[in-house]
Amino acid sequence: MPRISVEALTAFGTALLVKKGVAEADARHIASVAVLTEARGVSTHGTVALANFDEQVGRDIDPAARPKIVREKGATALLDGQRCFGQLCLRLAAELAVRKAREHGLAMVGCRNTSWIAGLGTYLLPVAEQGLLGQLWAQSSSCKDCAPVGGIDGRFSTNPVALAFPGPDGPVVADFSTAVMSFGRARRLAAAGKRGPAPVFLDPEGHLTDDPQVAVDRDGTLLFMGGELEGYKGYAFSLWSEALAAMGGGSANNPELPGRQNFNLTVIDPEAFAGNDYFRKEMGRFVAHVKSSRRRAGVDAIRLPGDRARECFEDSRRRGVELTPALFERLGAIAAKHGLAPLAALPA
Amino acid sequence: MPRISVEALTAFGTALLVKKGVAEADARHIASVAVLTEARGVSTHGTVALANFDEQVGRDIDPAARPKIVREKGATALLDGQRCFGQLCLRLAAELAVRKAREHGLAMVGCRNTSWIAGLGTYLLPVAEQGLLGQLWAQSSSCKDCAPVGGIDGRFSTNPVALAFPGPDGPVVADFSTAVMSFGRARRLAAAGKRGPAPVFLDPEGHLTDDPQVAVDRDGTLLFMGGELEGYKGYAFSLWSEALAAMGGGSANNPELPGRQNFNLTVIDPEAFAGNDYFRKEMGRFVAHVKSSRRRAGVDAIRLPGDRARECFEDSRRRGVELTPALFERLGAIAAKHGLAPLAALPA
Repeated sequence: MPRISVEALTAFGTALLVKKGVAEADARHIASVAVLTEARGVSTHGTVALANFDEQVGRDIDPAARPKIVREKGATALLDGQRCFGQLCLRLAAELAVRKAREHGLAMVGCRNTSWIAGLGTYLLPVAEQGLLGQLWAQSSSCKDCAPVGGIDGRFSTNPVALAFPGPDGPVVADFSTAVMSFGRARRLAAAGKRGPAPVFLDPEGHLTDDPQVAVDRDGTLLFMGGELEGYKGYAFSLWSEALAAMGGGSANNPELPGRQNFNLTVIDPEAFAGNDYFRKEMGRFVAHVKSSRRRAGVDAIRLPGDRARECFEDSRRRGVELTPALFERLGAIAAKHGLAPLAALPA
Repeated sequence: MPRISVEALTAFGTALLVKKGVAEADARHIASVAVLTEARGVSTHGTVALANFDEQVGRDIDPAARPKIVREKGATALLDGQRCFGQLCLRLAAELAVRKAREHGLAMVGCRNTSWIAGLGTYLLPVAEQGLLGQLWAQSSSCKDCAPVGGIDGRFSTNPVALAFPGPDGPVVADFSTAVMSFGRARRLAAAGKRGPAPVFLDPEGHLTDDPQVAVDRDGTLLFMGGELEGYKGYAFSLWSEALAAMGGGSANNPELPGRQNFNLTVIDPEAFAGNDYFRKEMGRFVAHVKSSRRRAGVDAIRLPGDRARECFEDSRRRGVELTPALFERLGAIAAKHGLAPLAALPA
């Protein structure tokens, strides 16, 4: 598989976005988010977002738009994405939330009407790096990915959530779907002709199957996080994300409208509670206690969420990020189309 | 199984707590929380809490103590439970959070050093009934219920979470463990000699089993929410709850200290975002859309979290709450010990 240096991939994404009409500084930020996501190992939400921009910009995304602050109180703000890049909405939301959290102890910024924000965890890294806690919910308004518990028809997207806080070895960052898996992963399984890890899909008649094709191509659905046994938990979290979308003036799930994303970011400052010093000391003790657990057979280390992504990031920085041949070719075609220098793969 | 009227059970709990040295108004509030939890069908966290008070008050709980506000900013507050009743801490936390959320758009109140707060959803009912959204995390500091993902040794309690928001038919309230089930449910399965619904327990050597006894009696553990496939999600949520505990000056998991609970309550006012009118209208449309899904075989209705509890509550009000013969006898013995009138079962 071809490997590309982080710098080369970022430069390529930036150049592509500039060609699509995005201001250079914004283009660099947007490309950096995609490449950082890829470099941390989330390939379902990384470079592929860059490739998708070629079609989306102009059609779903207005390259000249900027998010607008619709409403603001001391500890809250509401943004309208104005059909701009989700990455720009998140940048503004995080800036506002961090500033407000420092002043008020915590802050919440909602945003409606944005484009695909892709991997959520990436946005929380700088929040945790600044010593703050972050919780981020995102929702897509027009998907038919998951049926309500007991139901057959898709009424939810795979609405993801991310959580982050400072840990003794760097940010603890978790980022996952409230469905049994992200739709990107289901699509990838289906494309590879693979089965799911268990019967976690429902066919269009409501029968369980481990065949991802039914969810991807045949109007079936994915079970919620927790599957048959605990799907009511993923259902509750997904509903929460829908409620936050409605609270922000966005559409809760409604396939009759154009698909948009909504997100809701909470940032908390430990200094407003028992203080940063206590927090860091206690978390240091606790994480050591967690990691002191004996390991199950075949497990090489007890990890916190984010540990593996950090290892992956270090590796990506050293050796470049690995792209599938198909994605590498797709980026090559995009480069040719726009007269951009093609991506150079690193020597194997 | 004996049935007791909601009023009689509340009066009994109140009288018992007064005997244990609790002021009458507080006693009534604490008993009401337990009975409401029971009446909503959460029997693992309802009447049994009342029965447990007979041993806990004086030993783990100081009946005369009151929670103390340690620190306060506009949108935040931090409480120390002072070893008082968790129910009183939650009452103060909810009062503060609702008032602050109305003023600032959202509010967060943390609390350390409290006793078992039992069923979380009960506390969020009044929050949602007032038109607000609530998120509540609770943590127990000294349990060995769940091992980190990949690990064998218990480092977490079954840390529960609750979410609530106003719905068109009343509060939507979800309340569940970040473990595959609550410890109370595992204990109940073990006591009945039953197996779990799948291999969701780890024995003390780290082998999977469906035998709950290994977790309840033999130093084994419960998997996190999501089980083998998605346990990393429950792990992340449980870690989040530990971080909130540390943030509030409490102990993250530490079995070397006396066991206490920590909780963290967030309340959000939709009026600070796109406003109550839009929120209610959009949620009404969305909930109808969700409930219009076709149903899987054997499912009588598409429900939201909280719908079944509401049905159960109506039934409990009409027909009384059902207690197991063992619990009914235990309450009888407690009544005799304190010279209280015994609980009268309703005619069958």
